Amino acid sequence: MPELRKDPILGRWVIISTERALRPMDYKIAKEESKTDLSKCPFEAGNEKMTPPEIMSYRSPGTKKDEPGWWIRVVPNKFPALRIEGELDKRGIGLYDMMNGVGAHEVVVETPNHNEEIYDMPEKGIEEILWAWRDRMIDLRKDKRFKYILVFKNKGPQAGASIEHPHSQIMALPIVPLRVTQELGGSKQYFEYKDRCIFCDIIKQEIEDRERLVEENEGFVSFVPFAPRFPFELCILPKEHISDYTQITRSGFSHLAQILKRTLQRLTKGLEEPPFNLMIHTAPLDDLNLNYYHFHIEITPRLTEVAGFEWATGFYINPTKPEETAAYLREVKL
Amino acid sequence: MPELRKDPILGRWVIISTERALRPMDYKIAKEESKTDLSKCPFEAGNEKMTPPEIMSYRSPGTKKDEPGWWIRVVPNKFPALRIEGELDKRGIGLYDMMNGVGAHEVVVETPNHNEEIYDMPEKGIEEILWAWRDRMIDLRKDKRFKYILVFKNKGPQAGASIEHPHSQIMALPIVPLRVTQELGGSKQYFEYKDRCIFCDIIKQEIEDRERLVEENEGFVSFVPFAPRFPFELCILPKEHISDYTQITRSGFSHLAQILKRTLQRLTKGLEEPPFNLMIHTAPLDDLNLNYYHFHIEITPRLTEVAGFEWATGFYINPTKPEETAAYLREVKL
Repeated sequence: MPELRKDPILGRWVIISTERALRPMDYKIAKEESKTDLSKCPFEAGNEKMTPPEIMSYRSPGTKKDEPGWWIRVVPNKFPALRIEGELDKRGIGLYDMMNGVGAHEVVVETPNHNEEIYDMPEKGIEEILWAWRDRMIDLRKDKRFKYILVFKNKGPQAGASIEHPHSQIMALPIVPLRVTQELGGSKQYFEYKDRCIFCDIIKQEIEDRERLVEENEGFVSFVPFAPRFPFELCILPKEHISDYTQITRSGFSHLAQILKRTLQRLTKGLEEPPFNLMIHTAPLDDLNLNYYHFHIEITPRLTEVAGFEWATGFYINPTKPEETAAYLREVKL
Repeated sequence: MPELRKDPILGRWVIISTERALRPMDYKIAKEESKTDLSKCPFEAGNEKMTPPEIMSYRSPGTKKDEPGWWIRVVPNKFPALRIEGELDKRGIGLYDMMNGVGAHEVVVETPNHNEEIYDMPEKGIEEILWAWRDRMIDLRKDKRFKYILVFKNKGPQAGASIEHPHSQIMALPIVPLRVTQELGGSKQYFEYKDRCIFCDIIKQEIEDRERLVEENEGFVSFVPFAPRFPFELCILPKEHISDYTQITRSGFSHLAQILKRTLQRLTKGLEEPPFNLMIHTAPLDDLNLNYYHFHIEITPRLTEVAGFEWATGFYINPTKPEETAAYLREVKL
């Protein structure tokens, strides 16, 4: 019998359709050989002139801007979806609303080494990426035109990555994205009713149940959500109540680096390096300290085609049972 | 300069990113030759035994159930996402909610002719499909376990169609899908504020502006929405205020058949038969006559990859200007 499960935050129902079930093994995707000519990769050390001038970098003392010597480098996106210059110029056209596409669109080059994926790095290397995301968030939110800062990573062409070299992206937006608004709305409603943070309650239940848990350490848990839209969807949550990503403590960042590495390793070893998207959901800039909201990291592997049905309705059919995918991931040998 | 535009019903912002703009011509997708062995197609006349027994058909007098002689045939989906048998059995697991996946999942075979796409049919043939959708809706809503009936069509494998033979699908659901709930919420809010239906206001403005209009006849308009998520997204709305699809008048169905044919022809001739999804958004079963909601048909061609960014945020980047795609479609010769 298929199940209908409801996401407690968004109120979104999904079908867990065991009738069409695939076993986790069926999702393995053969890895493609890299065909990139490194001399043409704009994110390679030595090729710094192929990108716009760097915004920020972590680099060895004595080395120069836009030259080798860096281990993390942040540059403007060469094809930005939004432009940094100009006024918002909000206006109406009859009943419609619009504004100028003002915003920032940056690329975080995560390593000078073309083939060093985030999950292959030492934990300290991942921590550097986490710090770079934080530093850019703190800098970008000084600009009062922005309402939200979005950090995301597309891994693999099927996940939308047009450049192979490991990188993530940061967008500063003059609006709060709909999904975040909906999460804020849903979790606020829960808080008003229960006087507790729904994310704190979810963490408690997931740690007790253990069925959907994938990794746990001192500071964080990673688990398959109760009502995931996609097979092998994952969520990483801080155990402590923190709504704003930039307020993670120093030791928190090392715990996050560890759980992120172990979680992504389970995914990539278990499914042979599947394409995935990773996204931070954090509090909007106008109120960073929310008692009803937790920042979290959402990881969605791209294993199945999403039919128009899903887009048009917001109603997803997931052919795997979350408890089974979690068990499969827990059994992967690291 | 990119633009940010807001969907007036959902409150969803999209980026219209002219910097990455493609011209409409760039979206043309080469048509693939059919490789289906017709003797193995379960929807071919003569192959009726390859499907579960028919639920309903429009057929010539004197011909028998599950034999040739039909021009429309409705059968249960052989791999249903939901099951018709059983109780809903709503239950909680800690803070989570779930229920059994009870529902109906049917296939409407739109023609006995393998290569007769909906837009190639005479208007009368399309009208028969529209009537079949209505007949099934009316029958399925007698079952009080259901809250919503979803009619949709996937055309082409990239749009999720696993069988080539022209068909659409009907699902009866024990819940209202999230997107519909959100549309109901947004349009209700507008009604409470303005005492007018937002869809009626949109129709009025689109007919006056003409910029985004694609087709118009006595009963319906088709246009590119002001803030579409995808290139060449289209919306068909009845001019008269009707919230429930089944309450279209007899002449209304012939107008709808005409505008649907002409709109899809513009799309398929203009872009060389692109894959697309078509979906009816209509009132939920618990209140069919809503003063704030219009039923409508949403058509989304599958021309671009949707990156995880879009999924994770509900924030879309559309590389085409709606006014330009509408102008392109208007110029297609029928």
